[in-house]
Amino acid sequence: MQGMAFLERFSRTFRQNPSTSKLLLVVALSGGTSGLVAYSDATPQNSSNIVDSAEPEIKKKKVVVLGTGWAGTSFLKNLKDPSYDVQVISPRNYFAFTPLLPSVTSGTVEPRSIVEPIRNIIRKKKVDIQYSEAECVKIDAANKKVYCQSNANANLNGKEEFFVDFDYLVIGVGARSNTFNIPGVVENTLFLKEVEDAQKIRKSIIDCFERADLPSLSDEERKKILHFVVVGGGPTGVEFAAQLHDFLTEDLAKLYPDIKNLVRITLLEATDHILNMFDKRITAFAEEKFKREGIDLKTGSMVINISDKEISTKEIKTGEISSMPYGMIVWSTGIGTRRVIMDFMKQIGQSNRRVLATDEWLRVERCDNIYAVGDCATINQRKVMEDVAAIFQKADKDNSGTLTVKEFQEVLDDICERYPQLELYLKNKQMHSLVDLLKDSKGDDVKESVEVNIEEFKSALSQVDSQMKSLPATAQVASQQGVYLANCFNRMKEVETNPEGPLRFRGEGRHRFRPFRYRHLGQFAPLGGEQTAAQLPGDWVSIGHSSQWLWYSVYASKQVSWRTRALVVSDWMRRFIFGRDSSSL
Amino acid sequence: MQGMAFLERFSRTFRQNPSTSKLLLVVALSGGTSGLVAYSDATPQNSSNIVDSAEPEIKKKKVVVLGTGWAGTSFLKNLKDPSYDVQVISPRNYFAFTPLLPSVTSGTVEPRSIVEPIRNIIRKKKVDIQYSEAECVKIDAANKKVYCQSNANANLNGKEEFFVDFDYLVIGVGARSNTFNIPGVVENTLFLKEVEDAQKIRKSIIDCFERADLPSLSDEERKKILHFVVVGGGPTGVEFAAQLHDFLTEDLAKLYPDIKNLVRITLLEATDHILNMFDKRITAFAEEKFKREGIDLKTGSMVINISDKEISTKEIKTGEISSMPYGMIVWSTGIGTRRVIMDFMKQIGQSNRRVLATDEWLRVERCDNIYAVGDCATINQRKVMEDVAAIFQKADKDNSGTLTVKEFQEVLDDICERYPQLELYLKNKQMHSLVDLLKDSKGDDVKESVEVNIEEFKSALSQVDSQMKSLPATAQVASQQGVYLANCFNRMKEVETNPEGPLRFRGEGRHRFRPFRYRHLGQFAPLGGEQTAAQLPGDWVSIGHSSQWLWYSVYASKQVSWRTRALVVSDWMRRFIFGRDSSSL
Repeated sequence: MQGMAFLERFSRTFRQNPSTSKLLLVVALSGGTSGLVAYSDATPQNSSNIVDSAEPEIKKKKVVVLGTGWAGTSFLKNLKDPSYDVQVISPRNYFAFTPLLPSVTSGTVEPRSIVEPIRNIIRKKKVDIQYSEAECVKIDAANKKVYCQSNANANLNGKEEFFVDFDYLVIGVGARSNTFNIPGVVENTLFLKEVEDAQKIRKSIIDCFERADLPSLSDEERKKILHFVVVGGGPTGVEFAAQLHDFLTEDLAKLYPDIKNLVRITLLEATDHILNMFDKRITAFAEEKFKREGIDLKTGSMVINISDKEISTKEIKTGEISSMPYGMIVWSTGIGTRRVIMDFMKQIGQSNRRVLATDEWLRVERCDNIYAVGDCATINQRKVMEDVAAIFQKADKDNSGTLTVKEFQEVLDDICERYPQLELYLKNKQMHSLVDLLKDSKGDDVKESVEVNIEEFKSALSQVDSQMKSLPATAQVASQQGVYLANCFNRMKEVETNPEGPLRFRGEGRHRFRPFRYRHLGQFAPLGGEQTAAQLPGDWVSIGHSSQWLWYSVYASKQVSWRTRALVVSDWMRRFIFGRDSSSL
Repeated sequence: MQGMAFLERFSRTFRQNPSTSKLLLVVALSGGTSGLVAYSDATPQNSSNIVDSAEPEIKKKKVVVLGTGWAGTSFLKNLKDPSYDVQVISPRNYFAFTPLLPSVTSGTVEPRSIVEPIRNIIRKKKVDIQYSEAECVKIDAANKKVYCQSNANANLNGKEEFFVDFDYLVIGVGARSNTFNIPGVVENTLFLKEVEDAQKIRKSIIDCFERADLPSLSDEERKKILHFVVVGGGPTGVEFAAQLHDFLTEDLAKLYPDIKNLVRITLLEATDHILNMFDKRITAFAEEKFKREGIDLKTGSMVINISDKEISTKEIKTGEISSMPYGMIVWSTGIGTRRVIMDFMKQIGQSNRRVLATDEWLRVERCDNIYAVGDCATINQRKVMEDVAAIFQKADKDNSGTLTVKEFQEVLDDICERYPQLELYLKNKQMHSLVDLLKDSKGDDVKESVEVNIEEFKSALSQVDSQMKSLPATAQVASQQGVYLANCFNRMKEVETNPEGPLRFRGEGRHRFRPFRYRHLGQFAPLGGEQTAAQLPGDWVSIGHSSQWLWYSVYASKQVSWRTRALVVSDWMRRFIFGRDSSSL
């Protein structure tokens, strides 16, 4: 039984030592006999000790986090200040690595390989974090309460309802799939947002094949059942179509030889091109590849209605309406606002907006101590032109009514930090500093000693706000926002005395924190057949097998835990060796 | 991209070459560019070629196989005669390794690791086999038809119905969970027969924990929700209780530290002991272990009613009735007959029986060319006493009215083969041959030359039938029956001229085949904590860690494919290293 004992010891050490920084804890534990119990008890005790000694009188501030997606989880992972009492509320007790969802639809990766229980993540923290599996149904900003409903098995005596008080609220509930109120979408299509959606799609693909292979059907009926429609030519829709095509050609064609030639995949996109947030070279490559593979690509085609048997589309250019039968539709056209957020927006006077707005510090506008991160909100960027007079006044230290270059340069960093669109504008215009901008507006003969008045200043900055872009609804943005907000929470007291943000142009002093800045690290569009398009910062474009390997390495490295990393990689290997599973499970 | 190409080549070779016997095929394929297509086309062509050359005129006999469980799958795997046209009908398009179902409930093994698509299994065969995912709803024995209904997604225009003709029918539809008509069982308990059941149980366990950890509940309510009840102390119920206990102590206790002490597991068994088909040492060990671990073992306790909140039991000895609240109930008390089989039994005049009866050749009684294998049927063993006159007459070659030992010995093998209970009886009585039996009946002073008359013969055999036991409803029996029946089908023509079975005592000539004989290879009862009880042939009993390793090796080796073998083993390793997943997926 030596082998046994070794394995047990090995596994215990591994489970208790998820990162090298926990060495101390593990050493302390390894002497004990009941290591596991000691661990779970030790964590809260440890953290409360720290708090007790540091601030013995202060009651811990209660932070409520809604959601365990990218934003919520990265917030929790990066929160280090033990002086908070954190309550996490989410209907999903796990974090899901959503970029791999399209891989789950075809069984390239197993659903469980891309999820990590949130309790696993928080129990490793020295912060006091509690999790409750429930959905927030109402946010009461005035009374600082959130109302929740448990979605656990209805068998257990109905839905449990409760409320939680908060001092700070972090909203990261994500978004829902947008149906654009097109009739029949909810009833007849499958979304691809949650892990369960991906599982449903996988089962549905197999169902279609099994159904079409029944002996009693005509080939005409079989063709209908084997018509797979993907609505939405964004990265998710395109990746799903590619995965489906691979699944068919690499695996299902062998198992359903009699019907494999009756399969059709149609990709519908309302605009003129698929992947239109990517470089044109990528779009062209993807469209070319799909056409070559027989995927029916219909751009400029808008879905207007879906019945239980047919999907109706309208050609945008000609207005022509046509219908086609289908076996399965996957709907992937973008995101909409969740009901709980809509209600919340009404409550706080944002009902005229489409999406919940925050400022650049991720604080929900018109709310104290409520933050929103990820897909459920967008940053309402401050326009330079709104504040241009205040900026001018602040910069004009001698109140001369004109700005010298020197005066201007003194506030330059603050302006760029507060209004990131300015930096972007300069970069796009290939200017090196604001001085160039002033030169540009006054003509080429400007000198270092030039002075501008308010009107000239306004005219110089007039085009800057055109560079404002709202951030894409991606995992990358949500994750960075979570990290940013956690760092703010970690240093809340520090910056009270030492504010580190830019100058307040409309007030006194400085902002406490630097505003959130998104750093785009590039984006992938897997196109099937072990080919991926990658668009990296600096418009560096790479398409093909090499990008696929880059994709494998990036996605493996970005996994939330060693467990999911090992599982995802072993899933890939399994697929290479054995192919994908076609059981109707 | 060398690595890529290598991997692709490797995976293609592996997938197309599941066993070394297919070497020829792979060599032929490796030259082609479109290997996959060539493969799927080649198989049917090959097999029809063989048939064409061998029997050019004869229409293939249509064999319909109902079910893809242990019996059906082992029949299909062992069927080699290409002169059949086989149609498989089953609502599950996969074979599931059911002995690992209890492991799936706790996530020790993933559901997909224990299933293999039936199409994967049959496409490797040289026999013409078609599969349809549908449930047989009616067997029409008179007209040799089965009526089927597709259970594929209702979204696809309702349920598809069709019928299939057969020349031979192999029924292997398995059984349903037996509720003994106790009220509330179907509504409020979870079964453990199908892969989906195991998935539901897993989700339900996590649901109970999440629900119990909500902040709004009292400890009293939490205790109710965390009360897990297992009904049935057979191997499945016991293994599930053990798995649940391991899951709680090894994984969930760490993640739910506040409520871990409120958990209770109750195991209810109506008889006096659990595992009562095992050796007493095993029963005692298991009961002792469970008590030590705090599992509440209630034997002699019968469930009489289950409401949505409480389960009511009656003590068999005292008649005392009591109720207790529960969070989850797993019902594992044995098997009952499926509706389609009940209807079929009425049709063929077996309605007075509890279970569908076959003869020792697995042929359904009173039916031509209909066979039943696995849990859906039992073998109605022929009693020696029913045929004793015929046996005597057949053995008495000289019609002297008495049997000499010599005459008797000539038919001895045939009798033992036809009536296996005789062999069992002799073994139990520690006799070496039938002669000893005769000696026994006539007293010790019998000589080799003794003769017995019919009455003495009857009295000698009178106790033999007491040894008849119906076979247990296990995977082992079903699997052996499938193999046996496939071998019969493979040699159907051969034995027409060369019957190999025992003498027909009530007719002329010999039986075509030897009757089915079950070879018990032993049985495991995993008890949790890496301990397993094993009872091997010859009443060899082993309990503890070493048996657990035996269990691992046997279950790994018995997997239906290399794919599932690799997956199951890697699941075990994953569990050792990372523990079990607790996501509510």
